Amino acid sequence: MKKIFVLLALSISYYAIGQTDEEVLKEIYKSALVEGESYNWLETLSQDIGGRLSGSLNAERAVDWGKEELDQLGLDKVWLQPVMVPKWVRGAKEFAYIKTGNGETTNVNICALGGSVSTNPLGLTASVVEVKNFEELAALGEAGVKGKIVFYNRPMQADLISTFEAYGGCVDQRYMGAVQAAKYGAAGVIVRSMNLRVDDFPHAGSMTYGDLPAEKRIPSAAISTRDANLLSSMLKLDSSLQFYFKQNCKQLADVKSYNVIGEITGSQYPDEYIIVGGHLDSWDLGDGSHDDGAGIVQSMEVLRLFKTLNIKPKHSLRVVMFMNEENGLRGATEYAKVANQKGEKHVVSLESDAGGFTPRGFSFDCTDDTFKKVLNWKPLFKPYLIHYFEQGGAGADVGPLKTDNNVTVGLRPDSQRYFDHHHAANDTFDAVNKRELELGAATMASLVYLFDNHGI
Amino acid sequence: MKKIFVLLALSISYYAIGQTDEEVLKEIYKSALVEGESYNWLETLSQDIGGRLSGSLNAERAVDWGKEELDQLGLDKVWLQPVMVPKWVRGAKEFAYIKTGNGETTNVNICALGGSVSTNPLGLTASVVEVKNFEELAALGEAGVKGKIVFYNRPMQADLISTFEAYGGCVDQRYMGAVQAAKYGAAGVIVRSMNLRVDDFPHAGSMTYGDLPAEKRIPSAAISTRDANLLSSMLKLDSSLQFYFKQNCKQLADVKSYNVIGEITGSQYPDEYIIVGGHLDSWDLGDGSHDDGAGIVQSMEVLRLFKTLNIKPKHSLRVVMFMNEENGLRGATEYAKVANQKGEKHVVSLESDAGGFTPRGFSFDCTDDTFKKVLNWKPLFKPYLIHYFEQGGAGADVGPLKTDNNVTVGLRPDSQRYFDHHHAANDTFDAVNKRELELGAATMASLVYLFDNHGI
Repeated sequence: MKKIFVLLALSISYYAIGQTDEEVLKEIYKSALVEGESYNWLETLSQDIGGRLSGSLNAERAVDWGKEELDQLGLDKVWLQPVMVPKWVRGAKEFAYIKTGNGETTNVNICALGGSVSTNPLGLTASVVEVKNFEELAALGEAGVKGKIVFYNRPMQADLISTFEAYGGCVDQRYMGAVQAAKYGAAGVIVRSMNLRVDDFPHAGSMTYGDLPAEKRIPSAAISTRDANLLSSMLKLDSSLQFYFKQNCKQLADVKSYNVIGEITGSQYPDEYIIVGGHLDSWDLGDGSHDDGAGIVQSMEVLRLFKTLNIKPKHSLRVVMFMNEENGLRGATEYAKVANQKGEKHVVSLESDAGGFTPRGFSFDCTDDTFKKVLNWKPLFKPYLIHYFEQGGAGADVGPLKTDNNVTVGLRPDSQRYFDHHHAANDTFDAVNKRELELGAATMASLVYLFDNHGI
Repeated sequence: MKKIFVLLALSISYYAIGQTDEEVLKEIYKSALVEGESYNWLETLSQDIGGRLSGSLNAERAVDWGKEELDQLGLDKVWLQPVMVPKWVRGAKEFAYIKTGNGETTNVNICALGGSVSTNPLGLTASVVEVKNFEELAALGEAGVKGKIVFYNRPMQADLISTFEAYGGCVDQRYMGAVQAAKYGAAGVIVRSMNLRVDDFPHAGSMTYGDLPAEKRIPSAAISTRDANLLSSMLKLDSSLQFYFKQNCKQLADVKSYNVIGEITGSQYPDEYIIVGGHLDSWDLGDGSHDDGAGIVQSMEVLRLFKTLNIKPKHSLRVVMFMNEENGLRGATEYAKVANQKGEKHVVSLESDAGGFTPRGFSFDCTDDTFKKVLNWKPLFKPYLIHYFEQGGAGADVGPLKTDNNVTVGLRPDSQRYFDHHHAANDTFDAVNKRELELGAATMASLVYLFDNHGI
């Protein structure tokens, strides 16, 4: 009780609208839940534009849309920051089947991984060798792998509470699987989708060939979890079965795109920046509602809330819609480079890129001293069931902005359903709940308000 | 840090499987997430049986299913406890439209409220008077209400973080709307569905006529939120519009049903009971997956976890599938009556009846001293992101068991999406996420384990 009393005393401030921190947070949450725009914006971005892979026409439509919406918020500045981005195209829908010794075929659901080369136009047929990790692959060596399709089938670990931790424990198969398998002369790679649920959706995502020369690059695709289970059990019955897949994706030359940026210039520290952002690009299979349409519209909503509630930030407050997080991080790299060239001091950078689910808190990448200060704000969030304040990584797009003295932060929503949708055809608007999305935006705006008001 | 150290020291126990509390909880969560049965059970209960209103054939099928499943768990006792329940039947699907002065009709989505009488077989047509609460109704009086349909249209308050609080602020319209409107001679009642989302689903739920004689009872139905908005805006344009609805529901005589109960008899205190439960009945429009199939299968899973992990409870541990929570609470009343007659001391009664969403914690109905003790366990739950430990109400079915000295507890899952589905046709299996459901079961089992091991 005493602690709360001290906190209340400290937090009385006539900044902004002459209210205590508690009162300001209440107004923020109320406006987000009662008159919020985030859900409407997401509907347009998801339903009218849709999936928006870097370099695609849809990505350019999303840039135009983002700028137009920011123009209507009455900010002090809105602009596009040019950046060259990779352009990989999926081409015709992939096709795959398992063929057993008796000639029977079973169609399975796959998708090319982002950055993969195509198969031969007629497709690739080969026998399959299943491995759980690179150690098993190395033990098989060229004798066991050459000319075959390597099938990486290590599932996400279900007993980890953080699904992001489970993802982190598996994603090497997707990202590095081809370059590892190619070492031993594999003909292609099939990777179990990064999904904790057993269903029919193949999940896209980026992969690398490292410094493999073009002629050594082998096609790489994700298979749905249900079909991965099927393939694995069929292999146990018939280890000589054949797997066929066809994809005609390709990497084209880089094209010009943009980060979309809006700013409310600070009243006291106009040269110090607090930014909120997400990434405007998405994979192409779904409409990118959770990854990361949610982060985009929540970041926009933070600035709308400041305008609507007439909170005039002391620091310059920016929303940044980063381009090309998914397969290049070019937008984030460019934004940080320009900020550095201009000597713009970014004191706090907050990213939302973990889905539009009920917010649970934040992960703070900052000094212990700053974190101690931040922890004093935690009780202010209790009425909103925000309880997760931990030190840790913030996010990919704010990564390039990190210095020893500043703060980067990642919003941490409930993660249980995230990988059901991540990079798959079911990452769609209907999978986002309006209130959950709005609560995330309000939680971000509240933290931004506290950083702006009290500094780091 | 010191506090955690003390807790760790206290919690080392060679009870059960010779492990610390931390280790036991880890095993519980792992088993629930990796080899749990709750989701499989829910699939059968929801998909193969479906909606199971008290007194229906489906409710009896659910009783049989429940007993069969418990019989397979290797418990010490499984039995059915007879109880007479009300039997209300919906009859043919309801039909309703709005008719404006120019003769144009617009169909709208309604459902009869549980316990309501039917309309005249040809339906009821009347003009509509919209009110937000009983004060507005009283102000209109007989002059403004007689012969009309009263349309209760007070929405759930969107800026409340707990959707149950928002529900509590509105449900008087549904439960008491008819008896209040009948006082002033209304012809019927239409109630805005208890739903924070704007969509097309009418939401069922119970209502009362109090001690109104049969001839004064007026038909009462819920209308979807989107159609409530439509009706309200049409009334503003044409206050003399007519509303037509037809429903042929009726209340039949009580029928015999059952609570389904299973028990692991305690090793040290066999005459003291810890129970976990939910309600086996559901509304009829959906398949009752969240309300309360989830609570049923989570409660079953608690006992499965004890058996699988070879945790032999000191107290007798029961799962109770209560019948008739939705429209009578007869099962809970009977269970408590029998327990009382037999002098069974119920030390802890834990209910799950708030949906199968990600668990956030518990609401404890207990003395301050007990709550202080319970709070010591909170850090044990931190790895599982369980943070909500508050004193408050527990739940309807464990209510009749409450005494001054015992503990009743309600699981508190994330509530944001609950009322999107509550009592509506979209309360279906596909709306339940496997991991979220399993985490709830593990969280319940962990609390039960701690109460059993350390007492109250």
